[in-house]
Amino acid sequence: MSYYSDHREQFLEGLKQFLRIPSVSTAPEHAADVERAARFVADDLRNSGMENVEMIQKEGHHPLVYADWLNAPGKPTLLLYGHYDVQPAEPLDEWLSPPFEPDIRNENIYARGASDDKGQTYVLLKALEGFLKTAGALPVNIRCLIEGEEEVGGEHIEEYVAQNAGKLRADAAIVCDTEMFAPELPTICVGLRGIVYGELTVEGARTDLHSGVYGGAAPNPLQAMAEILAALKDRDGRIQIPGFYDRVRPPSPEERAAWDRLPFNEDEYLEKEIGAESLVGPADIPVLERVWAQPTLEVHGIRGGFIGEGAKTVIPARALAKVSMRLVADQDPGEATRQLQAAIAKLTPKGVKAKFQPIQGGPPSMIDPTNPFIHAAADAMAEIFGKQTVYIRSGGSIPIVGLFKQHLHIPSVLMGFGLPDDNLHAPNEKFHLPNFYRGIEAVAKYLQLLGT
Amino acid sequence: MSYYSDHREQFLEGLKQFLRIPSVSTAPEHAADVERAARFVADDLRNSGMENVEMIQKEGHHPLVYADWLNAPGKPTLLLYGHYDVQPAEPLDEWLSPPFEPDIRNENIYARGASDDKGQTYVLLKALEGFLKTAGALPVNIRCLIEGEEEVGGEHIEEYVAQNAGKLRADAAIVCDTEMFAPELPTICVGLRGIVYGELTVEGARTDLHSGVYGGAAPNPLQAMAEILAALKDRDGRIQIPGFYDRVRPPSPEERAAWDRLPFNEDEYLEKEIGAESLVGPADIPVLERVWAQPTLEVHGIRGGFIGEGAKTVIPARALAKVSMRLVADQDPGEATRQLQAAIAKLTPKGVKAKFQPIQGGPPSMIDPTNPFIHAAADAMAEIFGKQTVYIRSGGSIPIVGLFKQHLHIPSVLMGFGLPDDNLHAPNEKFHLPNFYRGIEAVAKYLQLLGT
Repeated sequence: MSYYSDHREQFLEGLKQFLRIPSVSTAPEHAADVERAARFVADDLRNSGMENVEMIQKEGHHPLVYADWLNAPGKPTLLLYGHYDVQPAEPLDEWLSPPFEPDIRNENIYARGASDDKGQTYVLLKALEGFLKTAGALPVNIRCLIEGEEEVGGEHIEEYVAQNAGKLRADAAIVCDTEMFAPELPTICVGLRGIVYGELTVEGARTDLHSGVYGGAAPNPLQAMAEILAALKDRDGRIQIPGFYDRVRPPSPEERAAWDRLPFNEDEYLEKEIGAESLVGPADIPVLERVWAQPTLEVHGIRGGFIGEGAKTVIPARALAKVSMRLVADQDPGEATRQLQAAIAKLTPKGVKAKFQPIQGGPPSMIDPTNPFIHAAADAMAEIFGKQTVYIRSGGSIPIVGLFKQHLHIPSVLMGFGLPDDNLHAPNEKFHLPNFYRGIEAVAKYLQLLGT
Repeated sequence: MSYYSDHREQFLEGLKQFLRIPSVSTAPEHAADVERAARFVADDLRNSGMENVEMIQKEGHHPLVYADWLNAPGKPTLLLYGHYDVQPAEPLDEWLSPPFEPDIRNENIYARGASDDKGQTYVLLKALEGFLKTAGALPVNIRCLIEGEEEVGGEHIEEYVAQNAGKLRADAAIVCDTEMFAPELPTICVGLRGIVYGELTVEGARTDLHSGVYGGAAPNPLQAMAEILAALKDRDGRIQIPGFYDRVRPPSPEERAAWDRLPFNEDEYLEKEIGAESLVGPADIPVLERVWAQPTLEVHGIRGGFIGEGAKTVIPARALAKVSMRLVADQDPGEATRQLQAAIAKLTPKGVKAKFQPIQGGPPSMIDPTNPFIHAAADAMAEIFGKQTVYIRSGGSIPIVGLFKQHLHIPSVLMGFGLPDDNLHAPNEKFHLPNFYRGIEAVAKYLQLLGT
């Protein structure tokens, strides 16, 4: 449809407006901005001609935006998912342009949320707009459910999906929150890691102590934290939690062979994407398998003691670490949490108390690549990008995929247009504009294919 | 002298004024307050009748306050040392009364610096005042050198002492910055641990990374930091730096026997002073020896990654830890630093760069208890407190003692009136008021004894 090529300027302008809203869901001070982003989505859906547009409110939570268009009897129903909230932008001084003032450089748009997930959510909205503004109708039935708490655990949508399976009835979901394997390579993601994210707290003395007076006899929670974290992994990165790997299902020989054929250069990956001294992890496991099909234990932040300028000789009374486990099929978040807690209890050194408290979680998911909704998506992408679509997995976690499976009994089609170097959750997040435009057309093509 | 008992109210009022000045030398935003505290000291010395009062300025540094009174020919000359700067007050929410609004509860005055070291510095000032306001003369010659950078490494005084050995000529120094072993027990400290304080930085990827996308292949500087810190000590707290213990001189059998006779109850120490699950350190080394005569390695703070509310799945690009080593005779700060750096180089895991950069240091010191200046101090304290003076060591570090020895070739008399539960460097720092008043009298008695 020429609508899509004719409206690129308007699409870009709309995306910029969306990105200017600092809808950081982890930050209470941005609550009003998150609401504003929800209204932006609702208004856009209404203006396109979607029906029953609704902001689903719940005390203490950010709204879910729902809309539907169900005037294609006999055609399948697709549930479109995205999220309008974003990660915090810190550290701010590493951004080359302000995170909430979208800046275009080298065909990329730079802003927090550019790719994750405002840009990709907007791809879905614009694909719908094209049909509705030209034909006045969609080729299939559509429900949209766009949330504002993806980056804080998605509690609201979890409860809503569990309680509204009837209202959300669909044949498949499209989740537009993943990436392409390489810039020109159409990609469908058929596996996601699950996650358990929580806080490890370690408590020592009643109060902060002077390290001169008490050093040598008083427990140091930061040292104890270091000992626990160090003991949870060996030097190759293998996790030392008893039973942790028991349920890990290795990739099939076919999947491994397909991954081997992907255009992947380990040196380039290290140099361009990571930029560290070397990669880590067991040398006998290929890199893609490490990030797609192996579980992880990561520490995301440590808080404790004196971290200002200069010297303060304090033994802190407590320390806190943000810790997550990424899980792969067939690990279970509840079981992994209990395994971690048991391991910590055993590893806690003398003098301190340590506790791991989960704050969010979601199971891993595997989607059957022979599913017809997956196939049509692969065909649509192949047509728009002019190349055979590849099937990959993602190391990330999209808990909604598990929820849709559990409560709606539908597969999720992970059709993503991000790129591996998009700096998700990091400074200088970007979205490649050619992928933004082709993404809109690929989703439109997909709906067309499903409607014929 | 009745002057001392008659002026307790004025002494207390003056101390409160001194404590109200937030002279936090580690915090650039308090620079003006630190200057104000220097002027407070200079004005007090001038008002008492000390001569040649001078604020010794140096670009980028807080002033040294110098004063002297040298009108007792044939009598010894004492150099009085104290510091008017204080540690940061954080964490503020753990203070029962604001740190810079002195509050009196149960015969204690609570404020940052109450004991360390404004209260004890003020003890020296008031002892001088008593003689000068009554007899108009001091029993001995006195030089005062009060600094404002003790809590940030004392760079200014270090340079000044090195360059002004002639001007500072004295027979002994009194350093009033230590504590009594127990509330009613007069105490002289004859040993101090040295210190090396610095920053351990660990760098991984070029930028913060998404732990879903890269977790399992990208190095995590916080994990690497934990591995390094954990490997630097064994589970008993023994430091695993090659060569680190080679120069450690064990206490003499006499000193060990004297320590055994001190009123020390390990359970009470754990419960009242530490308040943790248990003490740490090698079980075969008595607790007092662990904190007085054993070196330590402590982590004072870790900065890195996401530490806000909620969840951010980031692999941080870098991490920083504040780390110190306390040293005992005959360890050397330079050698210990090189040993630590070599150990870190060996322990650094794959994928990251780690570096330890010292920011301050000072050698350990041992003072000969048979020195006559020490004996007179012990006698003066015994008389005022009505009990035999005990000789102890301190686990803390007072770099000035090493400087005085190195450049002025004089011993330092560590006559302290703090108490073990004074919460130095911690919330709710206090000074026991009866010790404040008796401290003034004990210093006066000491000067009197030396002058006869």
